[in-house]
Amino acid sequence: MTSWITNAWYVAGWDAEIDSAPLARTICGVPMLFYRKLDRTVVAMRDACPHRMLPLSLGMREGDSIRCKYHGLKLGADGVAEEMPLKSDAVNRRICVETYAVCERHRFVWVWIGDRDKADPALIPDLWPCSTAGWTFDGGYYPIACDYRLMIDNLMDLTHETHVHSGSIGQPELMEAPLETRVEGDRVYVSRWMPGVDAPPFWRGALKLGGAVDRWQICEFLPPSVVMIDVGVAPVEAGATLERHDQGVRGIVVDCMTPESETSMHYFWGMARSFDIADTGFTARFKRAQGGVFAEDAEILEAQQRAILANPDLKLNAYNIDQGGVRARQVIARLMRQQTMEPAQ
Amino acid sequence: MTSWITNAWYVAGWDAEIDSAPLARTICGVPMLFYRKLDRTVVAMRDACPHRMLPLSLGMREGDSIRCKYHGLKLGADGVAEEMPLKSDAVNRRICVETYAVCERHRFVWVWIGDRDKADPALIPDLWPCSTAGWTFDGGYYPIACDYRLMIDNLMDLTHETHVHSGSIGQPELMEAPLETRVEGDRVYVSRWMPGVDAPPFWRGALKLGGAVDRWQICEFLPPSVVMIDVGVAPVEAGATLERHDQGVRGIVVDCMTPESETSMHYFWGMARSFDIADTGFTARFKRAQGGVFAEDAEILEAQQRAILANPDLKLNAYNIDQGGVRARQVIARLMRQQTMEPAQ
Amino acid sequence: MTSWITNAWYVAGWDAEIDSAPLARTICGVPMLFYRKLDRTVVAMRDACPHRMLPLSLGMREGDSIRCKYHGLKLGADGVAEEMPLKSDAVNRRICVETYAVCERHRFVWVWIGDRDKADPALIPDLWPCSTAGWTFDGGYYPIACDYRLMIDNLMDLTHETHVHSGSIGQPELMEAPLETRVEGDRVYVSRWMPGVDAPPFWRGALKLGGAVDRWQICEFLPPSVVMIDVGVAPVEAGATLERHDQGVRGIVVDCMTPESETSMHYFWGMARSFDIADTGFTARFKRAQGGVFAEDAEILEAQQRAILANPDLKLNAYNIDQGGVRARQVIARLMRQQTMEPAQ
Repeated sequence: MTSWITNAWYVAGWDAEIDSAPLARTICGVPMLFYRKLDRTVVAMRDACPHRMLPLSLGMREGDSIRCKYHGLKLGADGVAEEMPLKSDAVNRRICVETYAVCERHRFVWVWIGDRDKADPALIPDLWPCSTAGWTFDGGYYPIACDYRLMIDNLMDLTHETHVHSGSIGQPELMEAPLETRVEGDRVYVSRWMPGVDAPPFWRGALKLGGAVDRWQICEFLPPSVVMIDVGVAPVEAGATLERHDQGVRGIVVDCMTPESETSMHYFWGMARSFDIADTGFTARFKRAQGGVFAEDAEILEAQQRAILANPDLKLNAYNIDQGGVRARQVIARLMRQQTMEPAQ
Repeated sequence: MTSWITNAWYVAGWDAEIDSAPLARTICGVPMLFYRKLDRTVVAMRDACPHRMLPLSLGMREGDSIRCKYHGLKLGADGVAEEMPLKSDAVNRRICVETYAVCERHRFVWVWIGDRDKADPALIPDLWPCSTAGWTFDGGYYPIACDYRLMIDNLMDLTHETHVHSGSIGQPELMEAPLETRVEGDRVYVSRWMPGVDAPPFWRGALKLGGAVDRWQICEFLPPSVVMIDVGVAPVEAGATLERHDQGVRGIVVDCMTPESETSMHYFWGMARSFDIADTGFTARFKRAQGGVFAEDAEILEAQQRAILANPDLKLNAYNIDQGGVRARQVIARLMRQQTMEPAQ
Repeated sequence: MTSWITNAWYVAGWDAEIDSAPLARTICGVPMLFYRKLDRTVVAMRDACPHRMLPLSLGMREGDSIRCKYHGLKLGADGVAEEMPLKSDAVNRRICVETYAVCERHRFVWVWIGDRDKADPALIPDLWPCSTAGWTFDGGYYPIACDYRLMIDNLMDLTHETHVHSGSIGQPELMEAPLETRVEGDRVYVSRWMPGVDAPPFWRGALKLGGAVDRWQICEFLPPSVVMIDVGVAPVEAGATLERHDQGVRGIVVDCMTPESETSMHYFWGMARSFDIADTGFTARFKRAQGGVFAEDAEILEAQQRAILANPDLKLNAYNIDQGGVRARQVIARLMRQQTMEPAQ
């Protein structure tokens, strides 16, 4: 039993992380390697040679194939043997390494670890801000030593900013606006609408206008493990609403959590925005600032994970503010039960 | 099953180690934090927020309370919730973190990890030399990676000095005086009386007199895990005896061993003395010298612990010289059996 | 159940590694210490004092005996107590530490970890090139974090050189000569005969002659865990054969693998040769060059071991080229079954 859904797409890496040289990364407990073929499509394989189990990620690329560094077994991009260690030996095409369905979308490479015949690209979470004209998107990668669900809890909770990020993005007035949690099918939303407030410096600078603004923060959980946070401000007179708020400046923080093990995860983070999209300096400055915020979160999450292991007699509790995380975990648990019950094809 | 008594007082720290900022320390396998209230009394709590388990020791003190760094749950010194993460939420006073009985005595802060209603301060080991007028007392703290009972064995044995401390306090003539082991209730004594000997340099300097002396070393084990070693010399003509020996210069080494885990412990060490008590330089010099002696012991004890783990088919054996440690372990084992049998209140 | 034969001789160390000071080394999971007596014969003992289990390797040598650093228990070279911690206590000669049969041969010290009465020196693998007049032999020691059988696989396989050692000793033409695998009793041979080839630089320099040569590589596995590789070249006109090839220049690489744990081993490597035996510079240069080759192997073997642990659902597979390792593992497995069935004496 794992703590994650297996019939699902997970982010394996940023598009720019994966190139012709093999990248080794363990996804949901499975050691994998990733590389691009000559046509730039991505291959995902178990990172263990079917011969003597040496990680194939230590091997050499040859055309679209990979040759193991130990004895030179050559495997095609489909995982099937193309050349035996002794060139003169007949190729046994039953020799193969497991490959995984991959799909490149929304600037990420996604991998499917479960039943391959269910790997429908239509099931990839719709991270539309990452791939829509008029928007720009960039971000980074951080390994974090915690259960991936602790990060989902963290992101679906708009209240921890005051304490964890008191020196950076936290602001007391955030605590005063009412929160609304809503479940729609497999999606969970936590939203906060702050009408007629003074814009904080970051948003004031982005808006380039004075005057009272409406401000919003809307967290959206998409299974198996993505959170998008819609944030921004609009001049009060523009008449923005929780449902429709493209009148001012708007960004969407995109967070993809991929389990590595039960107590570690890969965190892929990015910020999409539809304002100043040609200003690459904005992107660079934002990434630098966000690095400090993540360091604060990572410290908390890793301490929380250690405490969970050190206090086996205690359990996590949930209060009102945790509705977002609670609902997201319920969706994950429900999907895991469904997966267990559905017949394997 | 643990290797320690739970209904007992253990030293959590030196009085000077614990102040208004939280100190994190695992006692008998339980992660705890300790801090002083405004009235200087000490609070001991489980080091895990009842909300999402973040160590409270990362939090901020507010008055006598502590506020979790993650979501700001505020807990009183009694462990009960005083403010929810959202200030506007009604406080649920069933939300609380476990607190532990503490007592400050003999320059140490003691904590009780078992049934709280049995936490009688009268059960604190009587370390009278640490808190008696006419005596001065100071020492240090050392974490050691071994079962706490290996340190009790070490201290109840006056013979290892020759080999372990051959370059410092060990002296061959110590091996020649007869040892006497005695059990009185829950206390175990190992004593050595050396009548009419030449005083070693340390004691000669303390005595500030020439001539033959009577010298003594008396180890006393007090459960659950304290050893006091009464040491000193007196001029032969003063007529000191094993029972009464305040005629010369006398010190009492106080050793408190607190289990951290089955294979690690907290070692609190100090030296009380009733001579030259205003000479703070004496204390400072003695602490420095003793640091080297402890390094020798720690090296041995940690190597012994590693060997115990690496040789699971072997067991510790006891000879004549180990009577003190054997008897002390018997007291611990008997108290553990009693505790198992007595009804929880 | 272990993965090694216990009734067998394993190399504990090079003759020059073991001297009067104790050497601690874990052999087949058993912590041991080794030292030489005054007559230069070697003693092997369990590295745990029978008293309080402190490693005896921390102790002091006295004559042929060893005295524990903790309480001074003195044990003779036969492992039996000679002096109690208190000199005045009568010696209890039932107090003893386990000792092991040792034998010095072929420049190595061998130890027998199983039933002592079966420890016949005639069973020591016959590493004749290490101790035959007209030959010179030297080498080194490397600890490697892998199952010892992975190293046997590596050495019984003459094909990995092309890939693992592409920058050093690997050469494509090695792949073209046919391999022959042969089992004779408990020995396994893999041989490659290359008639009338151009000698590679190393062998050309050793031969000091131009012209076509016959070249050979013959791997020989000897249980429990030794591989000798007979390598060299001879002028074609000398008429060398696979069976008899002393006509040119010949070396024998000697590899002794001793299990430390299920996932770590001691690797003793050396090169014997019957040419230029007075040229100590040759030996020194060869050892330095070989160090780089071993670093390449160690990287592969340790990555392979990590992959085996990280992919518990996969298993090692064997192809034609692995016949040598497969046969060697079959011999080990057969000897382990025999050992299980034979009555303990």
